[in-house]
Amino acid sequence: MTEYEAKKSQESLQDRLAQVTELLHRQRVVEDLTHRQEGAHQELVKDLVHRQNVVELQRKLDDLHSADVAYILEALPLEDRLEIWQLVKVERDGDILLEVSDSVRETLIADMDDHEILAAAREMDPDELADLAPELPRDVVHELMETLDAQQRERVRSALSYDEDQVGALMDFEMVTIREDVSLEVVLRYLRRLKELPGHTDKLFVVDQEGVLKGVLPIKRLLVNDPDKQVVDVMASDPVSFHPDDESYSAAQAFERYDLISAPVVDKGGRLIGRLTIDEMVDVIREEGESEMLNMAGLREEEDIFASVWRSLRNRWSWLAVNLVTAFIASRVIGLFEGSIEKLVALAALMPIVAGIGGNSGNQTITMIVRAMALDQITPASTKRLLRKEVTVSLCNGIIWGGVIGVVAYLLYGSWSLGVVMTAAMTLNLLLAATMGVVIPMGLEKFGRDPAMGSSVMITAVTDSGGFFIFLGLATLFLM
Amino acid sequence: MTEYEAKKSQESLQDRLAQVTELLHRQRVVEDLTHRQEGAHQELVKDLVHRQNVVELQRKLDDLHSADVAYILEALPLEDRLEIWQLVKVERDGDILLEVSDSVRETLIADMDDHEILAAAREMDPDELADLAPELPRDVVHELMETLDAQQRERVRSALSYDEDQVGALMDFEMVTIREDVSLEVVLRYLRRLKELPGHTDKLFVVDQEGVLKGVLPIKRLLVNDPDKQVVDVMASDPVSFHPDDESYSAAQAFERYDLISAPVVDKGGRLIGRLTIDEMVDVIREEGESEMLNMAGLREEEDIFASVWRSLRNRWSWLAVNLVTAFIASRVIGLFEGSIEKLVALAALMPIVAGIGGNSGNQTITMIVRAMALDQITPASTKRLLRKEVTVSLCNGIIWGGVIGVVAYLLYGSWSLGVVMTAAMTLNLLLAATMGVVIPMGLEKFGRDPAMGSSVMITAVTDSGGFFIFLGLATLFLM
Repeated sequence: MTEYEAKKSQESLQDRLAQVTELLHRQRVVEDLTHRQEGAHQELVKDLVHRQNVVELQRKLDDLHSADVAYILEALPLEDRLEIWQLVKVERDGDILLEVSDSVRETLIADMDDHEILAAAREMDPDELADLAPELPRDVVHELMETLDAQQRERVRSALSYDEDQVGALMDFEMVTIREDVSLEVVLRYLRRLKELPGHTDKLFVVDQEGVLKGVLPIKRLLVNDPDKQVVDVMASDPVSFHPDDESYSAAQAFERYDLISAPVVDKGGRLIGRLTIDEMVDVIREEGESEMLNMAGLREEEDIFASVWRSLRNRWSWLAVNLVTAFIASRVIGLFEGSIEKLVALAALMPIVAGIGGNSGNQTITMIVRAMALDQITPASTKRLLRKEVTVSLCNGIIWGGVIGVVAYLLYGSWSLGVVMTAAMTLNLLLAATMGVVIPMGLEKFGRDPAMGSSVMITAVTDSGGFFIFLGLATLFLM
Repeated sequence: MTEYEAKKSQESLQDRLAQVTELLHRQRVVEDLTHRQEGAHQELVKDLVHRQNVVELQRKLDDLHSADVAYILEALPLEDRLEIWQLVKVERDGDILLEVSDSVRETLIADMDDHEILAAAREMDPDELADLAPELPRDVVHELMETLDAQQRERVRSALSYDEDQVGALMDFEMVTIREDVSLEVVLRYLRRLKELPGHTDKLFVVDQEGVLKGVLPIKRLLVNDPDKQVVDVMASDPVSFHPDDESYSAAQAFERYDLISAPVVDKGGRLIGRLTIDEMVDVIREEGESEMLNMAGLREEEDIFASVWRSLRNRWSWLAVNLVTAFIASRVIGLFEGSIEKLVALAALMPIVAGIGGNSGNQTITMIVRAMALDQITPASTKRLLRKEVTVSLCNGIIWGGVIGVVAYLLYGSWSLGVVMTAAMTLNLLLAATMGVVIPMGLEKFGRDPAMGSSVMITAVTDSGGFFIFLGLATLFLM
């Protein structure tokens, strides 16, 4: 796609958003007036003001980088969003569609007719088309594919054949390739003939006649070495490379670790088939962090903040339903001890303390573990040690804070034995929280699930039911 | 520092970690045997085996990229970690220290004497020194500063004068600068004389005699344009640039949005004083995501998974203490209604359902909002709309799931009025959860705090106390 140099600006993005909203609002007021007062003369005046506003808004938008327009679209409620979208120049539609999040993209595409979509997609690279294709109407995709040449079509198909979290779905095809038996001078002349280099070109890919990757020539080396040298003498012959079915998050970690800007993707035969660039990897890193956070809270997926109520409900229901069942179980645990509570109603007031602090402490542990697992820092060998540490921490917390709350219980209800039961129950529930905080995410991973998935809901379920059972059980044994 | 090309490898990092652990373990067994059997002959044999093991381990480590060694050090418990650290070549110490996390770095530095630290730090760039300085012994820093020339010393001081979350603390000083009135040919010759270009050099900085930034010359343009052209005709004259006191997270967002690899940092007078690179920005993005997650769970900071128990306790106590107070308040709310519970013990069993589902739903809302705020998607203008949406969602959830649980309560306890109270209480508590899920993070931000800070603890506190009060209050009003 066309490149657009980011320009310096003293305004923050929030300022720009405010300006656009202001212009939109001004225009609304004018429309409102027009509807109310239908005199022909006024009509004309309003029309002029209105047109002037639209022009100003359009000029503002034209000045913005596509990524900034995308940001503004994300931050606006649906109706305002579509109004702005109509004002964006057709030739920028494609760029902007590629920048917005999936959920916002859906709302924008729903607002375009086939003709507009085709126009926006026509200038896209195969990897960009593949990004967009799943959300486009079927016949539009079909029509688009027919405008491509055989190689392009093959590339779109190939990119579509990989999972979203595989390298193959993220790679692009803008590799500059050279041969190893030419001089740097020849390479420099070749580049000059290209007129433009793809974004993120920090290295050229050295391939043989079969397209097998022989090495990479970092631009840095091309620039500092004697032009008479041969590529083969200057290139790095054993670069970090990826396969299209590698996990994209591992690739992103490698980019982070080795400070890469671009890297080759090769097939099983070592043939160069694409490249990965740091911009895509940054997205992967950001999304991984977000999805951990969302998953822990039991949200299925990213949710556009202005998503419809129905969409939000669907996103949140699965885990709320699970929570309903776990809350019901906790309630039945208490039901088992209704006799004890009738005899000593203080138990009802004290039991949520045991459950609540267990839940909080368990959430701290599970957050730590989920994070360490995402960073690959936990191995089977370290599990035992980790469990030991968490158990020790919770034992200390149980004795200290449990002791405090035990004293408080004594002061409130004047019973030493109630205080001791309280301390013991707190300690045991914290031990349970620590153990499950380690076991739940590790168990999820063992069964091939995302360790963050609903882990907050699950740990709370365990510490609630467990906490009630431990506290009321101990009370029934020792106080009744 | 010396550059180290990342090499292709079929082994995953986890594999490498396993190999190192295996070698360490083998050596331990040998030492163990040596301690038990003290015969002179055996001693000799063991010594040989031991030495062979160490050599193998050392060779393994020498083959690894510094970032990979850092990863292995992070993933090992303290005692193993220090054993490996002793085996790392002295000249690589500096590189590796810069790669590990703060908490692990502290354990490594504690294990080094001043002489070793000086040796490790001697080859560092000013920005790297500034990164390390806060954790080094004072006299070592002093000695290091004396080995620097005036410009270097000034740079270290300047980097140290900024907050960790400011651009000034993250910038480096490896800018390649050129003048605007020379030809590209001259630039190419100049680069060739440099022998090596700094990492992440995707653009050269064009400055005037006073050092004021006039523009940037992307390497891409240098390569494709006619060498006879002047820099001024080819450069981008209005590039994205940053100030040293800009927030680093905003800078990282700009890097992400505009797909930058490096960018100039200028002072108030427009003079070039440093540059930012994408590798530092990737760290900022990752850390932002992590700190949100940790903060929500009420963890103060990053915690090395093998941190000492004492360290872990300190990290977790502040929010546990807050939780203790909030749990106590919830308990007192129940205490207000002990009379009602004595009359109808079913209330004790049902009340945690109301509180628990409110807490879960509130956590979903707050997670969404915190995330959207981190992405700058929430403006004062959208707050009302957002609140309306969340309230509608929770109203639907309350009526549907509250209805289900009301029916269950009826089936369990045979009282229609109890079921109705249950449904009403659930709905009201979910409305409270939705409102506070929006209000808490926005309020925190308004008072200049991190919106994620302990927000999970706070929302749970509100939905617990609120849930108990609503449910028991309604029950007392209508059922007693």
